[in-house]
Amino acid sequence: MQNGSIVTYHDCFTTRAFGDSSLVFVSDYHPVSKTLAEQCLSTTPSFNRARQTAGAVPEQVLWAFIVQLASAVKAIHSIGLAARVITASKIIVTSKNRIRLNACGILDVVQPSEPDTLALLQEDDLRQIGRLILALATGNNAAASNPKALDFMSRAYSERLRNCVGSLIQVSHPQPSEPIKDIDTLLTLVADQAFSSFDNALQLEDTLYSDLNRELENSRIVRLLSKLGFINERPEVNNVGHAGHSAGQWSETGERYYLKLFRDYVFHQINSDGRPVVDLGHVLTCLNKLDAGSEEKIALVSRDEQNVFVVSYKEIKRALEAAFQELLKAGRR
Amino acid sequence: MQNGSIVTYHDCFTTRAFGDSSLVFVSDYHPVSKTLAEQCLSTTPSFNRARQTAGAVPEQVLWAFIVQLASAVKAIHSIGLAARVITASKIIVTSKNRIRLNACGILDVVQPSEPDTLALLQEDDLRQIGRLILALATGNNAAASNPKALDFMSRAYSERLRNCVGSLIQVSHPQPSEPIKDIDTLLTLVADQAFSSFDNALQLEDTLYSDLNRELENSRIVRLLSKLGFINERPEVNNVGHAGHSAGQWSETGERYYLKLFRDYVFHQINSDGRPVVDLGHVLTCLNKLDAGSEEKIALVSRDEQNVFVVSYKEIKRALEAAFQELLKAGRR
Repeated sequence: MQNGSIVTYHDCFTTRAFGDSSLVFVSDYHPVSKTLAEQCLSTTPSFNRARQTAGAVPEQVLWAFIVQLASAVKAIHSIGLAARVITASKIIVTSKNRIRLNACGILDVVQPSEPDTLALLQEDDLRQIGRLILALATGNNAAASNPKALDFMSRAYSERLRNCVGSLIQVSHPQPSEPIKDIDTLLTLVADQAFSSFDNALQLEDTLYSDLNRELENSRIVRLLSKLGFINERPEVNNVGHAGHSAGQWSETGERYYLKLFRDYVFHQINSDGRPVVDLGHVLTCLNKLDAGSEEKIALVSRDEQNVFVVSYKEIKRALEAAFQELLKAGRR
Repeated sequence: MQNGSIVTYHDCFTTRAFGDSSLVFVSDYHPVSKTLAEQCLSTTPSFNRARQTAGAVPEQVLWAFIVQLASAVKAIHSIGLAARVITASKIIVTSKNRIRLNACGILDVVQPSEPDTLALLQEDDLRQIGRLILALATGNNAAASNPKALDFMSRAYSERLRNCVGSLIQVSHPQPSEPIKDIDTLLTLVADQAFSSFDNALQLEDTLYSDLNRELENSRIVRLLSKLGFINERPEVNNVGHAGHSAGQWSETGERYYLKLFRDYVFHQINSDGRPVVDLGHVLTCLNKLDAGSEEKIALVSRDEQNVFVVSYKEIKRALEAAFQELLKAGRR
């Protein structure tokens, strides 16, 4: 089962490795996630007052939760299963307002259901969603057992949300509402909210893509800087006999000399007063041009200022690749 | 208007800068995007056969398009406007199966609508969605004018999609179907598809987050490597008087000497045969430990192998920061 609102389980097996009969479930790991109970339902007495306050969770967030739960439950029901466990202590919050059902399927293994109870279990899933939302709305995990909880909820939330929860937990007080008995009814009922969640997801996707584009540059730069690091100032490459030059001062001879001067050009710029210029922009520009193999020519000056070499980025790139390959070859032999 | 399925317009103004009266619209730029017409509707005669084949666009993709169009149109209608232009040549495809309405609002400026025609224009938006989907399904941009197009479509697509399109373009042939006259009806009708698009978006979000996590490492590494680059082998830092040491050999003296040896340790590893070891994993491990300022100690060996310094990553990190700050200070004065 692959769904964005369910923690994926990979395997389940029994083992005696821990000195007993253990049942082991292997699932995806979501670091630094909290359970919904930890995040929204404080159970310590000192927070007593906060617990009694309806409206701690904004209405829009509750709708977003309903949409995600509906999406998860739809995926489960459509392959002929029931979630069975939809409760705040078994749902994890992995990023802002993003929740995932956890521990689904454990009950299926521990207490396999009879095929004829499936419809009942699926209906119960919907009731559990309703109870969960009611608990979050009132800040009280046992709210569903309180007949006044729905009234209490309407102090802070719209009538529409109240009715939706009422239909889910199949309580039609104070207003008559049609009970929701299958997931498709719920999907249709919250369609407009699903569209707004969908749009939020798309917009987050756009943000992530643009962040990723910016960061992808870095991995190319890391590779280039590492190659330069492997080559520059390397004291000697032993046993590099094939190119005919003797060991020692490998990095100072041949094309590697350009690379040394290029490193100086990139990092050791000084201004007209001889002061160091520390400009990351210059570094990135140079390295990007190197990576692209630009035809642009630059003047590399030797340290004693007696020689100036005019080379293009393309030539430097070729020299870098050649030296790096030579190094790799020397390492392999 | 901020919606993930609409190209955002920022400004609109008139100018005489081009030697005439121009109306300029400023919108977001989506690089390397194609129009939906370019992608799905080939108009060159050589593709004639392909154009006549229904089913070139998979059904699931068409549903995904409907969901995105519905999301966009809902956003537009809910602020009391109409899209007015929903056609394959004005919709851009920015990534796989991700479409955006473009050029919305241009007509509002060029041909302002009367307030009393709004309802008609909104209804027409829905018809335009239907016509567009029919065009994509049949590969023929003029399909909506052909009464047989709906029949033709059912060769390759489900009855449900056919009926949905029929309802949108308000043609009830061959089966009677209720016309869809407002966007909320459409939203409810395609609710289940919206949920599956929503889930796809969530899963893509997960992938992007994990990619981004991996890449974010790189930006830290780039900064570290650049700092090392600025310092290592820098011939001299003139006018660094405050620390009392004279110019020349700056990078070889004091704590900078550790940094030089650390660079050797990171990049110039050799194996027991004296062969170069080119191991990016080693580089990244070392730099990550450096970035974290780990307490782990390493042995740095001088080039003449006469001296061994045992220092922790934490000390090297401090030396790196100090040297870099010194460089910055020298550059500023």
